[in-house]
Amino acid sequence: MVPNLTTALTGPLLDLERRILDRMPDIERWLRGKWQEHEIPFYASVDLRNAGFKLAPVDTNLFPGGFNNLNPAFLPLCVQAIQAAVERVCADARGVLLVPENHTRNTYYLANVATLEDILRKAGMNVRIGSLNPEVTAPTTYTAADGRAVRVEPIVRHGRRAGVAGFDPCMILLNNDLSAGPPALLADLDQPIAPPIAAGWFNRKKSQHFEIYRRVAAEFATLIDIDPWLIDPYFGTCSAIDFQERAGEECLASNVGALLERIGAKYREYGIDDKPFVIVKADAGTYGMGIMTVRDPGDVIGLNRKQRNKMAVVKEGLEVSSVIIQEGVPTFESIDDAIAEPVVYMVDRFVVGGFYRVHTARGKDENLNAPGAQFVPLAFESPCIPDLAGATDCPPNRFYAYGVVARLAQLAASLEIEALRDTEEAAQPAD
Amino acid sequence: MVPNLTTALTGPLLDLERRILDRMPDIERWLRGKWQEHEIPFYASVDLRNAGFKLAPVDTNLFPGGFNNLNPAFLPLCVQAIQAAVERVCADARGVLLVPENHTRNTYYLANVATLEDILRKAGMNVRIGSLNPEVTAPTTYTAADGRAVRVEPIVRHGRRAGVAGFDPCMILLNNDLSAGPPALLADLDQPIAPPIAAGWFNRKKSQHFEIYRRVAAEFATLIDIDPWLIDPYFGTCSAIDFQERAGEECLASNVGALLERIGAKYREYGIDDKPFVIVKADAGTYGMGIMTVRDPGDVIGLNRKQRNKMAVVKEGLEVSSVIIQEGVPTFESIDDAIAEPVVYMVDRFVVGGFYRVHTARGKDENLNAPGAQFVPLAFESPCIPDLAGATDCPPNRFYAYGVVARLAQLAASLEIEALRDTEEAAQPAD
Repeated sequence: MVPNLTTALTGPLLDLERRILDRMPDIERWLRGKWQEHEIPFYASVDLRNAGFKLAPVDTNLFPGGFNNLNPAFLPLCVQAIQAAVERVCADARGVLLVPENHTRNTYYLANVATLEDILRKAGMNVRIGSLNPEVTAPTTYTAADGRAVRVEPIVRHGRRAGVAGFDPCMILLNNDLSAGPPALLADLDQPIAPPIAAGWFNRKKSQHFEIYRRVAAEFATLIDIDPWLIDPYFGTCSAIDFQERAGEECLASNVGALLERIGAKYREYGIDDKPFVIVKADAGTYGMGIMTVRDPGDVIGLNRKQRNKMAVVKEGLEVSSVIIQEGVPTFESIDDAIAEPVVYMVDRFVVGGFYRVHTARGKDENLNAPGAQFVPLAFESPCIPDLAGATDCPPNRFYAYGVVARLAQLAASLEIEALRDTEEAAQPAD
Repeated sequence: MVPNLTTALTGPLLDLERRILDRMPDIERWLRGKWQEHEIPFYASVDLRNAGFKLAPVDTNLFPGGFNNLNPAFLPLCVQAIQAAVERVCADARGVLLVPENHTRNTYYLANVATLEDILRKAGMNVRIGSLNPEVTAPTTYTAADGRAVRVEPIVRHGRRAGVAGFDPCMILLNNDLSAGPPALLADLDQPIAPPIAAGWFNRKKSQHFEIYRRVAAEFATLIDIDPWLIDPYFGTCSAIDFQERAGEECLASNVGALLERIGAKYREYGIDDKPFVIVKADAGTYGMGIMTVRDPGDVIGLNRKQRNKMAVVKEGLEVSSVIIQEGVPTFESIDDAIAEPVVYMVDRFVVGGFYRVHTARGKDENLNAPGAQFVPLAFESPCIPDLAGATDCPPNRFYAYGVVARLAQLAASLEIEALRDTEEAAQPAD
């Protein structure tokens, strides 16, 4: 089901969705052309915000952790797509080593690992799960939230190959976002690793992603003749931030002010009565830690200790030293008065499904992927394939539009990884 | 649903299905390797026979005409797979000209055309339907059996490009099996045509297909260590047949006799009590015309006029001059006492679904795709993706085995088209 739009401002979004549907052959051709030139990420998930007047990505994850939240009726789409993805990485693959996150206590995440394992097996792979966690010293079976057993083994290294005891895989599939840095266990391997180590969060910056996304969105906006702002959130950055030491507050306040003004101008242009807001978040890192909603530049001056602590560290205890200040895109989709945010899943170049994060306790301008945000996933009821005879905003057509914008973010991620690899290579001594 | 096996002889088939499941990673890897070396047919359907002791293809169609019989719940698999297929033919495609069969009075076939059109549109293509039928001189809208409108236009040729009025497609998708020969309207085009003209029935011989299938089946049988006979029907051929003139009856009788003996020996080896039989059918051509079931060599001597007329011509009035004599594989699947034969559909290298032909009026050793065989299609209820926790013969696992054997036939068809193209090129004067 698609939640009802509770805003009256559906005009521009319906226009955008209509235009995306009408220009589908051009859009698909354009995307096919892009994927001839650039390497398709093995998989990706993209968090979107649907504001009623605007539809934009706010986060792009190259190690998606919610396959268990997809509609099980459409898992065959994942199986088919993962066959294409595996073929691209290594046609010779029979054995895949799946490397998950270390947090084995998160039983929902374990359900994601179990689902990924199931998809890979159904695609015809031998699968074993190898952990980077030094605490996993022997094969250990965990129980996922849905009751499935997940057997995790310590990764064993033999020369330039990694595997688990008695298993030498043809490829390594990372489902660990590498916030803690490139793992020594996986350095200098002969086996292909997908996504590449360079795609880890230790290496990515949200600002770089959205800088590249801006270019992708601009080209796409020209293609279908729309204002790029309708799919692209404004942003700015501040580096040299130290929340504990209160360093960088001025940069933050002036960026927040400038951004609020730019958003305000757009709101006036489109006759939107809402009050603009921005989201301040760590430029590196993930898991919705270190995030705050700001409506006034003064709000970032003189943060109290609790606020500073919240912003100062992200996953793996990393300190936040630079932030991205991103245009807040309000969420106008709701289900039974609970706000709902779409998350779209891609495997290879295929949109394989998605779900809504639904949360009753939060406002429409807050981040739903924050710590303590006990969101309820609600799987998309239909695949992201349009119903060309249906209304513009019928679920399959809305999901198709979601899938298009999500793929723009996936394309930006691909260009981003290319840039990161180029940087890496430039930093290596020549042979 | 999977029909119940009504035979007690399920031992060998269950063994075969079990082995196919157990060796899935090797099988998928082997197939991936094959598709690195050979061109994947755009789409294909394969008629299978499940004898309880044997599972074998009996016909491979490169212009499948029953997409309307697939489970609509799994059409997204077709959409996803056709995106891959189109990308392979021409990444630049936006417009596709779909060229159907000429028989516009078959409203079930029109439903297939409507379904294909829908799949292509949902994959992001502009689609128009162009007819080779000289009687279609203006755009004409037909009504399919399911009530959908199918607009067919005359093909227009401009130099080395074909299209319909106001539409210059990037590629041409044939759903016409070209029994009548290569169409002049499509000769020497700049646009890619899929499947290639060389794959038309005017050019194919069933015996060549099954000769190549035998080699594929032998290699596959070595891979998973089975007797190739379990997946491969014996066959022989007779050319210089003229049913009307009663020429070639001796060749036929002696081939039938030899084949029945070879089948009988295998039946004894496996302790099968059935009486062997063979199917005699036109070596070229399709649509189940010119087919008869033979249990004794004497049966083909002194055919009466009705039998001779039935055998003498196939589709498009072509005369039958050579026949294939193929091991009859009895059908032991049934639904409510009606026998049922599986048909598996592939798009690109993906198995996208299938259906059963169900017919109450026919015996288990007769051909269900014969004229007047008013079969009822029954869509597979699940995709051909295995349930690794399920019983060997649970529907998804049986369908997976079907999908594997069908893909062997698809691979044979690919090698067959390569051979046909090589012959064509050898026949051309050098530039």
